[in-house]
Amino acid sequence: MYAELMKAATAIGIGVAFFSLLLSAMMDGTSPAAFINIPALMIIMGGTAGVTLASVGMQAMKRVPSLYKLVISAEPPDTRAQLDQLVSLADKARREGLLALDAILPEIEDDFTRTALQLVVDGTDPEMVHMILQAEIDGMAARHEAGASPFEKAGGFAPTMGIIGTVLGLVHVLQNLAAPSTLGPSISAAFIATLMGVGAANVVFLPIANRLKAISAEEIELRVMTLEGILSIQAGDNPRLVAEKLMSFLPPAARAEEENGAGAPAAPVSIDAKAA
Amino acid sequence: MYAELMKAATAIGIGVAFFSLLLSAMMDGTSPAAFINIPALMIIMGGTAGVTLASVGMQAMKRVPSLYKLVISAEPPDTRAQLDQLVSLADKARREGLLALDAILPEIEDDFTRTALQLVVDGTDPEMVHMILQAEIDGMAARHEAGASPFEKAGGFAPTMGIIGTVLGLVHVLQNLAAPSTLGPSISAAFIATLMGVGAANVVFLPIANRLKAISAEEIELRVMTLEGILSIQAGDNPRLVAEKLMSFLPPAARAEEENGAGAPAAPVSIDAKAA
Amino acid sequence: MYAELMKAATAIGIGVAFFSLLLSAMMDGTSPAAFINIPALMIIMGGTAGVTLASVGMQAMKRVPSLYKLVISAEPPDTRAQLDQLVSLADKARREGLLALDAILPEIEDDFTRTALQLVVDGTDPEMVHMILQAEIDGMAARHEAGASPFEKAGGFAPTMGIIGTVLGLVHVLQNLAAPSTLGPSISAAFIATLMGVGAANVVFLPIANRLKAISAEEIELRVMTLEGILSIQAGDNPRLVAEKLMSFLPPAARAEEENGAGAPAAPVSIDAKAA
Amino acid sequence: MYAELMKAATAIGIGVAFFSLLLSAMMDGTSPAAFINIPALMIIMGGTAGVTLASVGMQAMKRVPSLYKLVISAEPPDTRAQLDQLVSLADKARREGLLALDAILPEIEDDFTRTALQLVVDGTDPEMVHMILQAEIDGMAARHEAGASPFEKAGGFAPTMGIIGTVLGLVHVLQNLAAPSTLGPSISAAFIATLMGVGAANVVFLPIANRLKAISAEEIELRVMTLEGILSIQAGDNPRLVAEKLMSFLPPAARAEEENGAGAPAAPVSIDAKAA
Amino acid sequence: MYAELMKAATAIGIGVAFFSLLLSAMMDGTSPAAFINIPALMIIMGGTAGVTLASVGMQAMKRVPSLYKLVISAEPPDTRAQLDQLVSLADKARREGLLALDAILPEIEDDFTRTALQLVVDGTDPEMVHMILQAEIDGMAARHEAGASPFEKAGGFAPTMGIIGTVLGLVHVLQNLAAPSTLGPSISAAFIATLMGVGAANVVFLPIANRLKAISAEEIELRVMTLEGILSIQAGDNPRLVAEKLMSFLPPAARAEEENGAGAPAAPVSIDAKAA
Repeated sequence: MYAELMKAATAIGIGVAFFSLLLSAMMDGTSPAAFINIPALMIIMGGTAGVTLASVGMQAMKRVPSLYKLVISAEPPDTRAQLDQLVSLADKARREGLLALDAILPEIEDDFTRTALQLVVDGTDPEMVHMILQAEIDGMAARHEAGASPFEKAGGFAPTMGIIGTVLGLVHVLQNLAAPSTLGPSISAAFIATLMGVGAANVVFLPIANRLKAISAEEIELRVMTLEGILSIQAGDNPRLVAEKLMSFLPPAARAEEENGAGAPAAPVSIDAKAA
Repeated sequence: MYAELMKAATAIGIGVAFFSLLLSAMMDGTSPAAFINIPALMIIMGGTAGVTLASVGMQAMKRVPSLYKLVISAEPPDTRAQLDQLVSLADKARREGLLALDAILPEIEDDFTRTALQLVVDGTDPEMVHMILQAEIDGMAARHEAGASPFEKAGGFAPTMGIIGTVLGLVHVLQNLAAPSTLGPSISAAFIATLMGVGAANVVFLPIANRLKAISAEEIELRVMTLEGILSIQAGDNPRLVAEKLMSFLPPAARAEEENGAGAPAAPVSIDAKAA
Repeated sequence: MYAELMKAATAIGIGVAFFSLLLSAMMDGTSPAAFINIPALMIIMGGTAGVTLASVGMQAMKRVPSLYKLVISAEPPDTRAQLDQLVSLADKARREGLLALDAILPEIEDDFTRTALQLVVDGTDPEMVHMILQAEIDGMAARHEAGASPFEKAGGFAPTMGIIGTVLGLVHVLQNLAAPSTLGPSISAAFIATLMGVGAANVVFLPIANRLKAISAEEIELRVMTLEGILSIQAGDNPRLVAEKLMSFLPPAARAEEENGAGAPAAPVSIDAKAA
Repeated sequence: MYAELMKAATAIGIGVAFFSLLLSAMMDGTSPAAFINIPALMIIMGGTAGVTLASVGMQAMKRVPSLYKLVISAEPPDTRAQLDQLVSLADKARREGLLALDAILPEIEDDFTRTALQLVVDGTDPEMVHMILQAEIDGMAARHEAGASPFEKAGGFAPTMGIIGTVLGLVHVLQNLAAPSTLGPSISAAFIATLMGVGAANVVFLPIANRLKAISAEEIELRVMTLEGILSIQAGDNPRLVAEKLMSFLPPAARAEEENGAGAPAAPVSIDAKAA
Repeated sequence: MYAELMKAATAIGIGVAFFSLLLSAMMDGTSPAAFINIPALMIIMGGTAGVTLASVGMQAMKRVPSLYKLVISAEPPDTRAQLDQLVSLADKARREGLLALDAILPEIEDDFTRTALQLVVDGTDPEMVHMILQAEIDGMAARHEAGASPFEKAGGFAPTMGIIGTVLGLVHVLQNLAAPSTLGPSISAAFIATLMGVGAANVVFLPIANRLKAISAEEIELRVMTLEGILSIQAGDNPRLVAEKLMSFLPPAARAEEENGAGAPAAPVSIDAKAA
C-alpha cells in the first residue's frame, strides 16, 4: 500500500492540485459548467498540440502515451539492492575469478548490468568496457531528454495559446461594445482560455516534464554506480573498497542501514581483505 | 503515405495550430476579415524582419527560404541502416583489409561517410582522421545553429513588436477619447498587433526554430556514430564489438529488431569473432 | 547570543519581511482578517503542494520538514578550525608517520574527515582515495540539490497558482456584473490569491531554496578543502605548504588572523620545513 | 553595390524596422509630433545611459561610438581567401622549408596571421605557438564580449525605464482625476515612455548587441582556422591534408566552389602529396 | 581629475539615472513629496532586506557596506604596469637567476604577485606553484561571486515586493469603492510601491551587482596574467616570449603604446634573446 502511494505520487499530486482548483472555484460560487468553453478548449488543445508536434516531430509525439504511463507508475530504483548485488559479484569474482560470473549471468535481471558483465566475462579491454557502457548511459540520457521534450514544449506553449485565446475573445468583445449587458459574461468567457492554458501547463505538462527528468536522473545515477562497480570488479578490487566507493551513491542514512543489513555476509569480505 | 506524414510533421503541426485559432475565432463570431489590419501587419512583418536582419546579417537571412523547405520535408535519418552499413564495412575491412574498402567507396551515398573512409583508405593517421572528422561535425553544428538563429530571433522580437503596435494604437485611442462610439473597435484593432506578434512567434517562428534544432541534433548524432564506427574500422576492431558500441546510439526497442533483422549476416561476424 | 543570531538569519529575515508586509497593510487601513480567504488559501496551498509533489515525487517531499529545521538552525562551517586541524595532522604525520594518525582517529568528530583519514591509514592508493572522496562530495552535492528542489519548484508554481486563483475569481465576478455594489470587494478578494501566491513564493519558498543552496556551497567548499588537505597529508607534503595551499579557501581577512592565532604552533612547522 | 548592401545589413535592418513603426503610427492617424515627449525622453535616455554606465564602467562606455561604426560597416570575413592563403603557405613551406616564409611575411596583411607566422619562422616551440595564439584568441573573445556588454545592458534596462516612466505618469494622472477631459491625453503621454523604452531596446540596442556577437563569432572562427592552419604548416603537414582539415570551416556549398576555383594551383599540391 | 571620474563611474551613473527620473517626474508636475509613502517604503525596504538576509545569511549581509564603498571607488587595474613588471622580473631572473628575485620581493606591492614570487624563490615545484596560485584565484572568484549575491538577490526581490505592495494597496482600494473621490489618489499611492521596487532594483541594486562582477572579472584577468607570467619566469622563458604571451591580455591599441613605451628597455631583452 505504501509502495503504491510512492509510485503514484505524480498522479496523486496532479489530482490534489486539480481538485483544489475545482473546489476553490465552486466555493466562489462558479459552477464547473462555466469552464466548458468550446472555443477556448479548441485553442488550448488544438493550438498546443499543433505547435508541439511542429516543434518535436511525429516520433517524439508517438512516445507521449507510454511516457504518461511511466510517470504515473514509476518505482524509485532500488539503489541499495543493486549495490549489494555488485558487492557480492565483486566478492565472487575475487574468490573464484571473473569467469565464475558467467554462470550467474542468466540470473541477473537488469539488462544493463548483464550486458556489462558479459563484456567483462568475454575479456573485453577495460577501457573499451568503459567506453561502451558510458556511450550506453549517454544514449539513454539523450533519449530521456528527448522524451521529456514534448511535455516541456507543451508547458511553454499552452499559456501563450491561452493568452492568444483571451486576446481573440477581447478583440471580439471590444468590437461589440454596443451590448453592455453581455459585456461581463463575454469578458469572463475570454478569460477561460487563459485559465485553461495556464492550468494545463502548470497542473499537467510541467509537473510531468519535471517528474520525467527526476526519474531519468535517478536511473542515470543507478547506471553510473553500476558502471563504477563493474569496472572495479574487472580490476579485481577488494570488495570492501568496492562497497566503500559505491556507498557514496547512497544518502548517509541509507548507508548505516545497509551496513547493518550486510552484517552477516561482511565476514568473507573482510577475510578476503586481509588475504589481499 | 505514412513516411510522408512523418516528414510533414512540422507543416501539419503549424496547420493544425493555425486552423484551431481561426476556427475558435469564428466560433466566437469574429469574421476573419477583422484580423486584416494593415498597420498591425506592417509593424509585425516590417519590424520583425528589420530587427532580425539587423541581428543576424544578410547572409543568414538568405538561407531562410531553403531552411523553411528543409523543415517541411526533412526525413528522420535512418540510424539503423547506417549502423548496418558500418558493421558490414568493419566486417569487410577485417576479412580483406582496409584497402579492400577502396572499391566500395563510389557506392557510398553519404558524403561524410565517403570522405571519412577515403581518409582511412589513404592511410591517414587515426588521430588526424579523428581531428578532421570532429572538426567537420563541429563545423556542421555551428552552421546549423547559425541557421536556426533568424527564426529564434524573429520568435523573440515578434511579440515585442506586437506590444509596440498595441501601445501605439492605445496611444492614439487615448488621444481621441472624445468619440466614445469608436472606442471599442479602436482598442480592438490595437490588440490585433499583439495577436499577430504572439501568434507569428508561437505558431510559426519558434516551432520552426525548435524543429531545426531537433533535426540538427539527429544529424549530429548520426555523424558522431559514423565517426565512432570509422575509427573502430580503422583500428581493426572486431565487428561484433563495433556493433555493440554503435548500438548505444539506438533506442533499446530498435536494437532488438536490429538484432533479429541482422540474424543472417551475423554468422560470418561471429566466426570472425572466434577467429580473433 | 551573537552566534544565535547568525544561525537564525533565515528565520529572522523571513520574519522581518513578513512583519513589514503586515504592518504596511495595516497602515493602509486593511484589517489582517481581510487576507483570510479560504478559496484563495485552498488554491495556493493545495495547488502548490499538489504540483510540487507531482514534480519531485514522494521521497523528496518527506525530507521537507527536516530541511526547514536545517535552514533555520544551520551554523556556518568553521573553515579555520578545520584548516588548523588538517595542518596539525599534516605536522603529526610528517613527524611520526601516517600510521601515527590511527590513534587520533576516534577523536575526530567530522565523519568525512575520519573516513578520509581511515583510508589513508589503511594504505589505500592515493588515486583511489581521491576518487572515493570526490564521489562522496559529488553525491552530497547531488543530494543537496535534490533537497532544495521542492522549495524551488514551490517557489515557481505558487505565483502561477495565485494568478489562476485571481483569474478564477475575476471570471466569477464578470459573470455577475449585475450587482455593482459587491463588485469592489469581489475583485479585491480575487486579488488575495495573487497576493498569497507571490508572497508565499518570495517570502518563504525562494529564500529557503536560496539559503539551502548557500549552505550546500559552504559545506562542499569545506569538504573540497578537506580532500585537498588529506591528499597533501598522504603525499607527505611540508605542513607549511599544506597551510599555504588550504589558505586559499579563506578570505584574506581571516588568513591574517589565522596566522596570528597559529603563531605558537607555527614553530615546529617551520622547523619541519627546514629539516625537509 | 551588392557588397555594400551586405556590409550595411544592420543599418538597413534598423532603418526598415524604424520606418515600419513610424509608417504604421501615421496610418493610424497619429502625428509623429505626438511621440516627442520630453519627460519620457529624459527617463529613457538619461536613465538608461546612467544605469548602463554604472553597470559597465567608463572604459566600456568610451568604446560605444567605435562599436556603432563597426556594426554598421563590418564586412563578413573572407574565410575562403584565408583558407587559400594558408594552403599556399603550407605548400611553400613544404617545398622550400619554413624559413622561406620569412620573405613573404611583409606581404601578409592580417596582423594575427603575420604574428603567428613570425613565431613559426623564429622556431618557437609548437606548443608555445599554440598557447600564445590561443591566448590571443581568448583575449579577443573576452574583449568582444565586453564590447557588446553596454548594448546588452542598455537593451535590458531601457524597457524597465520605460515602465518606470509610464508608472510615474500614471501616478500623476491618478492624483488629478478631477479633470476627466485631459485624462485620455495624459494616459496616452504616459504610455509614450513604455513605447520609447521598448522601442529603443528592440530596434536599436538588442539588434546591435546581437550583431556584435555574430561578428565576433565569425572573427573567432576565422582565427581558429588560422591557428589550425599555422600549426599544420609548422608540423610540415601535407598541403592536401591541410586543405581537408580547414575545409570543415566552410559550408559545403562554398567548398565545391573552392575546389573548382583552386583547380589550377591544385596540381603542385597533389604532386607534393605523391612525393610525400 | 580624469582618473577620479573613471573611479566614480558607478556613483555618477546612478546619480544621473536618479536625477533623470526625478526631473522627469517634476516636469510632469508631480511634487517629489508625492513619492514619500511610508507603507510603500516599509514594504520595499523591510521586505527586500528581510528576504535578502534570509537568502544569503548574516555574513554576506555584513560585507554589503564595504562592497558599496568598493564599487564607488574602484580603480581599473593597471594591466600594462603589471605586464611591464613581470617582463622586467623575467629579464632579471634570466640574467641573474631566480634567487636574485629574493632581494626585490619587499618592493612588490601586490600581495598575490609577492606570494607567487616567494613560492618561486623558495624553489617550490612548478606544478605546486600553479596549483596554489590557481586555488587562490578560484577562491577569490568564489568570494567575489558571494559578494555580489546580496545585490543580485535584492535586485530580483525588490520589484516583486513592489508588486506585492501595489496589490495590497489595490485590495484596500477595492474594498472601499464607496468613496469615489479618493479613488484616484489611492490607486496612485498603490503604484508608488511598484515604482520604488522597480526603481530600487534597476537604479541601485542591479547596476551595483553588474559593476561588482565586472570589477571581479578584471581582477581575475590580471591575476591569471600574473600566474602565466610567474610560471614563465620560473621556467626561465625568454623575456621577449613572456612579453608576447602576456600581451594577449591587452587590447591591441594598448599593445602598440606598450611596445613604444618599452622601446628603451627592450634592448637588453633582445640581446638576451639572441644569447639564448
